[in-house]
Amino acid sequence: MDERTGLPVVAMVGGGQLARMTHQAAIALGQSLRVLALHPDEPAAMVAPDVVIGDHRDLDALRRAAVGAEALTFDHEHVPGELLSRLVAEGVTVHPGPEALLHAQDKLVMRRRLAELGEPVPAFAPVSSAADVDAFAAEHGWPVVLKAVRGGYDGRGVWIVGDSGIVDELLEAGTPLMVERRVELVRELAVVLARSPFGQVAVYPAVETVQRDGINTEVLAPAPGLSEDAAEEVGELAIRIAAATGVVGLLAVELFETPDGRFLVNELAMRPHNSAHWSMDGAVTGQFEQHLRAVLDYPLGSTAVLRPACVMANVLGGDPVPTTGPDERLHHTFARFPEARVHLYGKSERPGRKIGHVTITGDDMDEVRRRARLAADHLATGVWTDGWSAH
Amino acid sequence: MDERTGLPVVAMVGGGQLARMTHQAAIALGQSLRVLALHPDEPAAMVAPDVVIGDHRDLDALRRAAVGAEALTFDHEHVPGELLSRLVAEGVTVHPGPEALLHAQDKLVMRRRLAELGEPVPAFAPVSSAADVDAFAAEHGWPVVLKAVRGGYDGRGVWIVGDSGIVDELLEAGTPLMVERRVELVRELAVVLARSPFGQVAVYPAVETVQRDGINTEVLAPAPGLSEDAAEEVGELAIRIAAATGVVGLLAVELFETPDGRFLVNELAMRPHNSAHWSMDGAVTGQFEQHLRAVLDYPLGSTAVLRPACVMANVLGGDPVPTTGPDERLHHTFARFPEARVHLYGKSERPGRKIGHVTITGDDMDEVRRRARLAADHLATGVWTDGWSAH
Repeated sequence: MDERTGLPVVAMVGGGQLARMTHQAAIALGQSLRVLALHPDEPAAMVAPDVVIGDHRDLDALRRAAVGAEALTFDHEHVPGELLSRLVAEGVTVHPGPEALLHAQDKLVMRRRLAELGEPVPAFAPVSSAADVDAFAAEHGWPVVLKAVRGGYDGRGVWIVGDSGIVDELLEAGTPLMVERRVELVRELAVVLARSPFGQVAVYPAVETVQRDGINTEVLAPAPGLSEDAAEEVGELAIRIAAATGVVGLLAVELFETPDGRFLVNELAMRPHNSAHWSMDGAVTGQFEQHLRAVLDYPLGSTAVLRPACVMANVLGGDPVPTTGPDERLHHTFARFPEARVHLYGKSERPGRKIGHVTITGDDMDEVRRRARLAADHLATGVWTDGWSAH
Repeated sequence: MDERTGLPVVAMVGGGQLARMTHQAAIALGQSLRVLALHPDEPAAMVAPDVVIGDHRDLDALRRAAVGAEALTFDHEHVPGELLSRLVAEGVTVHPGPEALLHAQDKLVMRRRLAELGEPVPAFAPVSSAADVDAFAAEHGWPVVLKAVRGGYDGRGVWIVGDSGIVDELLEAGTPLMVERRVELVRELAVVLARSPFGQVAVYPAVETVQRDGINTEVLAPAPGLSEDAAEEVGELAIRIAAATGVVGLLAVELFETPDGRFLVNELAMRPHNSAHWSMDGAVTGQFEQHLRAVLDYPLGSTAVLRPACVMANVLGGDPVPTTGPDERLHHTFARFPEARVHLYGKSERPGRKIGHVTITGDDMDEVRRRARLAADHLATGVWTDGWSAH
């Protein structure tokens, strides 16, 4: 509780862009987010006054972040569960709790749990040797998908392989592995919801997520052409997973849509998620405020969309990093697209790095997508990819 | 320029809620607002890391706030013009500049200037004695409106009088005065626009502002029943005033609508303004981002509305201050109105004090207004003014 305001304090582990945007949302709720950051120059630490510098793998740092906070929550999934269990035992309110969060930390735990629940997942198996992979492929066919059980993101930790040649090397390097059937898919979708300790759930409309080289480039909200029945089916799937895992806060369920109209769960995340950034500008309640409301057990906000079409395009650092500065590129982007909602994270530029996102809302999905993509690419590279010139 | 990000630094004089919400907007632009605050517990100082503690009437404090900033701008109008002129002479970029800002600081300067320009203002006269007021009333009739030339706000510094009895007392107390004809009006409107140094202007739709005891309670956007011609007329009036005064940043023009369909200028403000708070949730570009874009000479954002009706209701501290805490009241408000956008300023509660606002958007203005008013009153008092009970 902040004695000055009579309003709660939420502490977030991690100082990245998710914490940065959560602080933005906290301001409207009369709060100021407490951030546990590794460095004072991390995206959230540059914009919030209440920053604890420390490592998320250090129990004492976590304790310092949690002191006096109504809830401790996360910008990422990298806090070891045993430390969180210690904090819970010491009386800290941790949302999501360690048992729930494990499903977002360990892909094998998640797959096994969903399979037990009878939820649709790709065929999978644990891997402790190359022979395990060969046996799996003998049943399901090559190529197969190898995944690091822990720690992968944005396409890292995933290998599509036609033989088991790299398996022993990865295992010897200490990467715990699992293998999955390679799913034939027509596209990827995501459903994000919030769940409160009380058990209230609020689901955002299902979105289509577009990837390039394993990195999300655009999110289309709501998912174009998804039938009402299918939207309800995936929404209910996400609600069942939320209830079964006991997640508190946001849950993102990434899905494969298959050619025969099925939806398989690919990944889970239990924090604000890139696939719901659109909600900041395209829904009544943005995901960052919703996450705070959920972890504080506030009644959840409306997830209704404001306009028929909304596209979020990630700004991925140009390769090579452009010679024009970000300020100049921002000028040009705003000049061409006065309707663009730009969110910059204060991160230094590296090729492929997510340094911001752009959201555009409107009536026509194709047109909104075209504009959002152009704006995001220009912010990243200083180039209009459609050859447009202002001169 | 922030060396860490390559993006500009804006310094804002004043640590109130306008600076607080400007910091929120700055985060999306990759920035962190520098705030000059009197105390570390002011609304903006509680949520921004880059705070200079000092007085806005102290040249050295202003200099400290301005160091390395691309622009110095304002949360209020109380900085003496001579200090701003000194800063400008020293090379600080001050937006709005002191010559422009004078029109928002001195009501007599503003009235004279607008009258010179031929713009519609109520009849007025300077006052140096009770006899001046008597002479004015002899021509225009009693009652008349006495106004403090400087320093009034939220109904303070305005007296509607049927005789000149209090004039000498006010003058002796050092309050510079002017007198105006009391305008018969059907309602009050406001037009807010942004103007960049380059001269680009972006105008928000005209809104209706509802006052009670001189304090704004609700803003209806766009103003209900205003004809297209009238909306264009007041928009162009605001643009002419912006160009004539040379304002950079936001300009709010408060207007009286008279029974014969005329629009008279009541007040000017040159900063983010209560009458445009609705734009944070109801327009493509919120006024706080727009102000930053204007003072940085970025191209301005779209001012289009997102939904047909938007109402902002101020949360005015209850009288007496309620015994339930703000957190409990927030719970109940969210439970009843999941679509309510709440903005709390982190201010202590005092009767009548603006401690936050609520915005609701939708299709039907009357319904949206009813809900926004109920939500704001509940946040202030813990009472549902329609007698509603959740039990």
